Amino acid sequence: MLGGMQDFELRVTTLLDHAAREHWAREIVTRWADGSETRTTWAGIARDARKLAQALERLGLKKGDRVATLAMNHGRHLVAWYGAAGMGGLIHTINPRLFDDQLAFIANHAEDKVLFYDRAFAPIVERLKSQWKTIEHYVCFDSDGPDGFEALLAAEDGSYDWVTGDEREPCMICYTSGTTGNPKGVIYTHRSTVIHALAEMQPDVFELSARTVAMPIVPMFHAVGWGLPWAGAAAGIKFVFSAVNDPLVLCDLMNREKVTHTAGVPTVWFAMFQHMDATGETPKYLKVVTIGGSAAPRAMIERLMKMGIRVNHAWGMTETSPIGTMGAPSWDWDELSFEAQVDQVTKQGKVPYGVELRVVDDEGVVQPRDGKSSGRLQVRGPWIVSRYFKADEAAVDADNWFDTGDVSVLHPDGTMQITDRAKDVIKSGGEWISSVDLENAAVGCAGVAEAAAIGVFHPKWDERPILLVVRKPGSAVTAEEVQAHLAKHVAKWWLPDEVHFVESLPHTATGKLLKTAIREQYKDFRLAAA
Amino acid sequence: MLGGMQDFELRVTTLLDHAAREHWAREIVTRWADGSETRTTWAGIARDARKLAQALERLGLKKGDRVATLAMNHGRHLVAWYGAAGMGGLIHTINPRLFDDQLAFIANHAEDKVLFYDRAFAPIVERLKSQWKTIEHYVCFDSDGPDGFEALLAAEDGSYDWVTGDEREPCMICYTSGTTGNPKGVIYTHRSTVIHALAEMQPDVFELSARTVAMPIVPMFHAVGWGLPWAGAAAGIKFVFSAVNDPLVLCDLMNREKVTHTAGVPTVWFAMFQHMDATGETPKYLKVVTIGGSAAPRAMIERLMKMGIRVNHAWGMTETSPIGTMGAPSWDWDELSFEAQVDQVTKQGKVPYGVELRVVDDEGVVQPRDGKSSGRLQVRGPWIVSRYFKADEAAVDADNWFDTGDVSVLHPDGTMQITDRAKDVIKSGGEWISSVDLENAAVGCAGVAEAAAIGVFHPKWDERPILLVVRKPGSAVTAEEVQAHLAKHVAKWWLPDEVHFVESLPHTATGKLLKTAIREQYKDFRLAAA
Repeated sequence: MLGGMQDFELRVTTLLDHAAREHWAREIVTRWADGSETRTTWAGIARDARKLAQALERLGLKKGDRVATLAMNHGRHLVAWYGAAGMGGLIHTINPRLFDDQLAFIANHAEDKVLFYDRAFAPIVERLKSQWKTIEHYVCFDSDGPDGFEALLAAEDGSYDWVTGDEREPCMICYTSGTTGNPKGVIYTHRSTVIHALAEMQPDVFELSARTVAMPIVPMFHAVGWGLPWAGAAAGIKFVFSAVNDPLVLCDLMNREKVTHTAGVPTVWFAMFQHMDATGETPKYLKVVTIGGSAAPRAMIERLMKMGIRVNHAWGMTETSPIGTMGAPSWDWDELSFEAQVDQVTKQGKVPYGVELRVVDDEGVVQPRDGKSSGRLQVRGPWIVSRYFKADEAAVDADNWFDTGDVSVLHPDGTMQITDRAKDVIKSGGEWISSVDLENAAVGCAGVAEAAAIGVFHPKWDERPILLVVRKPGSAVTAEEVQAHLAKHVAKWWLPDEVHFVESLPHTATGKLLKTAIREQYKDFRLAAA
Repeated sequence: MLGGMQDFELRVTTLLDHAAREHWAREIVTRWADGSETRTTWAGIARDARKLAQALERLGLKKGDRVATLAMNHGRHLVAWYGAAGMGGLIHTINPRLFDDQLAFIANHAEDKVLFYDRAFAPIVERLKSQWKTIEHYVCFDSDGPDGFEALLAAEDGSYDWVTGDEREPCMICYTSGTTGNPKGVIYTHRSTVIHALAEMQPDVFELSARTVAMPIVPMFHAVGWGLPWAGAAAGIKFVFSAVNDPLVLCDLMNREKVTHTAGVPTVWFAMFQHMDATGETPKYLKVVTIGGSAAPRAMIERLMKMGIRVNHAWGMTETSPIGTMGAPSWDWDELSFEAQVDQVTKQGKVPYGVELRVVDDEGVVQPRDGKSSGRLQVRGPWIVSRYFKADEAAVDADNWFDTGDVSVLHPDGTMQITDRAKDVIKSGGEWISSVDLENAAVGCAGVAEAAAIGVFHPKWDERPILLVVRKPGSAVTAEEVQAHLAKHVAKWWLPDEVHFVESLPHTATGKLLKTAIREQYKDFRLAAA
């Protein structure tokens, strides 16, 4: 048909161009590991990203090449994202908390050409350099020397036109660090990233505007830093980055820079609450706190809400760019009691436009959205993975459904509630017991610092739960007290057959409970009563 | 590169699918012209849109065919939008306020196959039926008879799969009603519409969430109803439609349905203020009022802001889908005085991600963003027109810049301020005088109901302004009083050489001053002093 609209490729460089043109004076603040602070602006980020793109081309990189980072959150890391994508490359954020064999595997599998790293991670670089087969250049983000980031930029004039091309070209790669098997690389396209960024700005997701001052506590190396480095440019927000996650530093920085939005895993808030209790300090300007990565405990949600903060309980994965659902206030929010509001936020919320969810049972039968039928959560949409990097097969079925490995229920209003990881669910006599629910209930018991629930062999019920508990320092909480507390929160047949006290529990590199190791340890365990 | 993201075509049917799946119970309320009210939901809209798509196919329509409407705002009109686009057609909203020759031209030029019309516009249909060459079917939205909309749907079962295809296929056409020449058709694609809908939800544009209860007072036939029918589905908002725009009806409906967001031209608020003053009633739940179509006077902005309402001063055109800029609160809003906040809102705001602006002088030289240099406003982006329907030539230059015909300045922070329409600007001795500024200043003078400034021939200055004033009923305001008032608001050399009092001023079909007619009337006018 003759006539129509203009057609522009949706490339991530247009996000930065927008920020640099329309929000050029908005600040990007960095608090470095050594305590120093630097300030730049979107104009500065854009100028430096162009210089970086020039430098990468000078180093011989070409369209499609991977540019790795081993770094915390800071303005130079942001420059690296846009610079790498701007020269047609893929920014590849590596999680420095991974184990050495994973670090070696990931960089080799991605065939990274350059690595930008924080000085704090220099020991990792030294240790792994000989194993990394494709990295030709190492650049230290926070070195003032000739090997440093600023020296690399200083050689360029910034007169550079972004590499253009189809919006379906890739701009980023991020590896998932599962508890089994080799990490898998998720490839994001310019198109998927821009559409995701547009969706993230909306009030029912991150609620990003020019007035937003965001401190992403979630590391930029973790699941696309939840997408904020891209969406923040689209909205022209002010960024406040901290390269360390000490609550004292964060709280002080939040108040000095008037941070309105943060995003991070629940652990961040455990630490922040301790700091608040000890010092009486409090982050005064916070309006929206997004919690994801793992389920936020009810007590945490309640405390933040009582501070007048909107708590966004999010669910997502590296494979979902990462926003899958967001627990924004429902349409009838103002008519709900505080308790009902908290109830709502303990669930993982609803999908934004773009994401579709369904729950299927073990036979693949789609379950009703009745708030009761639980099953494997599947997801699809324009920012959901279709195939892992170099994978022989698609990561999805013929209808694009991606199996998340989470177990959840869907409520009639579309709200999604994670009940467990599929592999962690405890199957007792054909019924499912949520290990996550048991653990969350247990940490609400006075004296309990952390808890892990696993299923162990039972001759009659196949599996029954046992609970491993780490006591808080100085606590002498007993198994009977824990059971009595649990009895108030879960069905009677969910109560663990035994409660064991342990000194500590194993964790993955990203801080989650390493259930595989715990199960391995208990694989020959027999219940006393069985 | 092996690996990547899923790829879904961005089609407007996915907006409705999302609303029907995730916000199925959210209501769509219609207050009809006869005073009756009906309620449906997003699930109901989706069901009916599928039935309508079936019915259109039964009537013989094919992909790419145009489906016209001559209608006010109501739920059935919304069904028609999605039903027409869902069967692969183009929804074509016709402005019933146009003159007969325009109405005849538009439907023939678009080659509309079906016309859905409100009973209130039946006289137009009767008058024009013989002139419309391509319309084969006429369906009355609010008739209970066999020619009615519900009868058409009743014959279908709604088991229908949306027509699929490339996201660059068209889904809508809307004609601009300029003051000269034939109307021109703007074609929107599925892609441009979905991207625009995503952008509209963001806090700095319409701020749409599941909690939003929006009453679009802007008619759905005017400039895509400002995009709300599409974006509203993406956010799952509640819609409240009124087929009549009487302030008493609107105010009552807003309060009963707890309307939080409205969008309309300034005239709406003139009428609403009169109603509020006369009755003491006030729309109690309003949070965000978007005003566009023409510049909102300062006094209007001030009064709404004093009610605790956020005023979004928007600029856009049929050619811009229609959002060009939006006057959302700036990043430093909370630090501004009330006066400074009002100052800001009197301007037209900033572009969202996706839109680019520039201002050029008569020689096409790009002007600095200094808040002073005025010139012709040009715009480009993924939801800006590239070519009018059936046009021989592109509507844009080689770099995609579309000349808006508006005269504006860009401020250093990116804020855009319309100063005039290019053809209305008064050129006095090589300097430009804004007719809009003169008119807006004049209506602030007690006793002035409406004013029009035009340039008339002057032997020395080429042009000098004269001001035509319509007095308020009962007022005896004098030319001297008007001049004295103007002197407080504009530069001395802008003061009109003469002030004439007239009984009324001519308007376009969309309620704007018809300057061409006024200029025609004064083309031989000579200033007394010249």
